[in-house]
Amino acid sequence: MKREINETTRREFIRLLGAGGCAAALLPTGLSAHEGHEPGAVHPNPTEAFPQIKAGEETILILLYPGFTAIDAIGPEYVFSAMIGATVKFVAKTTAPVRTESGFEVTPAFSFKTCPKKPTLLLIPGATDGLLHALADAETLDFIRDVGGAAKMAGSVCTGSLLLGAAGLLKGYNATSHWQTAELLPLVGAKPVDQRVVFDRNRVTGAGVTAGLDLAFQLVRYFRDDFYAKGLQLLAEYEPQPLFAGGGDHKKADPRVVLLLNEMHRPFVDKTGGIIRSVVEKRAV
Amino acid sequence: MKREINETTRREFIRLLGAGGCAAALLPTGLSAHEGHEPGAVHPNPTEAFPQIKAGEETILILLYPGFTAIDAIGPEYVFSAMIGATVKFVAKTTAPVRTESGFEVTPAFSFKTCPKKPTLLLIPGATDGLLHALADAETLDFIRDVGGAAKMAGSVCTGSLLLGAAGLLKGYNATSHWQTAELLPLVGAKPVDQRVVFDRNRVTGAGVTAGLDLAFQLVRYFRDDFYAKGLQLLAEYEPQPLFAGGGDHKKADPRVVLLLNEMHRPFVDKTGGIIRSVVEKRAV
Repeated sequence: MKREINETTRREFIRLLGAGGCAAALLPTGLSAHEGHEPGAVHPNPTEAFPQIKAGEETILILLYPGFTAIDAIGPEYVFSAMIGATVKFVAKTTAPVRTESGFEVTPAFSFKTCPKKPTLLLIPGATDGLLHALADAETLDFIRDVGGAAKMAGSVCTGSLLLGAAGLLKGYNATSHWQTAELLPLVGAKPVDQRVVFDRNRVTGAGVTAGLDLAFQLVRYFRDDFYAKGLQLLAEYEPQPLFAGGGDHKKADPRVVLLLNEMHRPFVDKTGGIIRSVVEKRAV
Repeated sequence: MKREINETTRREFIRLLGAGGCAAALLPTGLSAHEGHEPGAVHPNPTEAFPQIKAGEETILILLYPGFTAIDAIGPEYVFSAMIGATVKFVAKTTAPVRTESGFEVTPAFSFKTCPKKPTLLLIPGATDGLLHALADAETLDFIRDVGGAAKMAGSVCTGSLLLGAAGLLKGYNATSHWQTAELLPLVGAKPVDQRVVFDRNRVTGAGVTAGLDLAFQLVRYFRDDFYAKGLQLLAEYEPQPLFAGGGDHKKADPRVVLLLNEMHRPFVDKTGGIIRSVVEKRAV
């Protein structure tokens, strides 16, 4: 339901306002100037019946790198793209299609060279094998350091926090990661916090995979306000019904499942730790 | 964390089994033949400490069409791709990249011509403007009718149920859709059920956008079993924390938000209804 919001909403608002529809009360009085509307189209006396829809013009960049976990990037992208006035784009080393973890390709809008250098947000998705390659890639870490460092906010989903950290952006910050890699955060100077979404000053990190959605909704509230975030939660029908209560939380999940996943991913976690150690030493993070 | 599961898991299992790791008990005794492993690699006496990981070799196709809502397709794709042994691919009219609702491009693996004709599952994502075009496209509806009709299960996320229905696959079925378009389901002979995920014989439909994740986890349980679904829920750290309790449910959400979204999308819903009426008449759905 995104495009409807993105492309039609302004015109639709104007139409409703012109028709004296109830949405009239939703527009802040100053919106017409801010959004470039004809002043006459904004209802002169918004009632108090509705809170205002907060406008914005955020520039949000989401990094793509070979092997990234698609949902880590595309879940938040869905949510951000529904922020009227925001620019939400994928950025990668070049504008060639980038292969995801499961093998399909996504096209970035910007290359490292052509992308805006001071975005509102730079978001780094996670990966598994792809993470190991990205961690070892100086150009990618330099990009994250420079653009993420200049951004109003730098953030990550899942194991993306290890990239953010290896680039030097989590030193002295509270942060989170996939529950299986949170133990590696101290290697980059971050303090692991066992929360689904961790805000600390100009950094925001999400836990594993699906935490990207919660992170995105929290950022919408941060960039806009409660009312906007409520609108997107209902638009996205975000009323989750996980099959197993507590099943997504390693502290509450079936211990047999925790043990299995830990056995399966131990080699990955160890390998990742090794690479981070060498990167931190080489780059003096 | 998907690729780790998809590409490494079999080898990793073998390694753990060889090492007498606790994962040994997780493999069904018959797995080696089924999965083509060397029989000797499977632990001869799996203990009873762990339930078995259920094997499978599902073929899952997810339709891409211009303007599709990316998360509707890519959320479930993430979940399905973590089913060891399953083949999960995007299919579109041609193998050219397909533009999503928000404007980036995703590459399908199969065209209508080259894709498997009797998949385990054909899943149809939703869209807004893109839905109107897809509904009016006979070739797309024919494909859904033929391949979805031959599939073990045909399903949809969000407004994708209207495509499934316009193709004739929901006649006499209980189904759901985005809360704003569920009222259109009777036009295609379906009975709207106000649930997040609706299973009815060989059809499964999800509510709006993020319901695709719940649908996917339920399908993992359906194709495999509880233990497998638990593993994926924890791998994906699916322990959602929506900002507003009930905020994703139109019956419980802030009524000002419900009213706003209804005003905004009424033109879309009416237009969609008009197209469905003409399609149903023309195709005698």
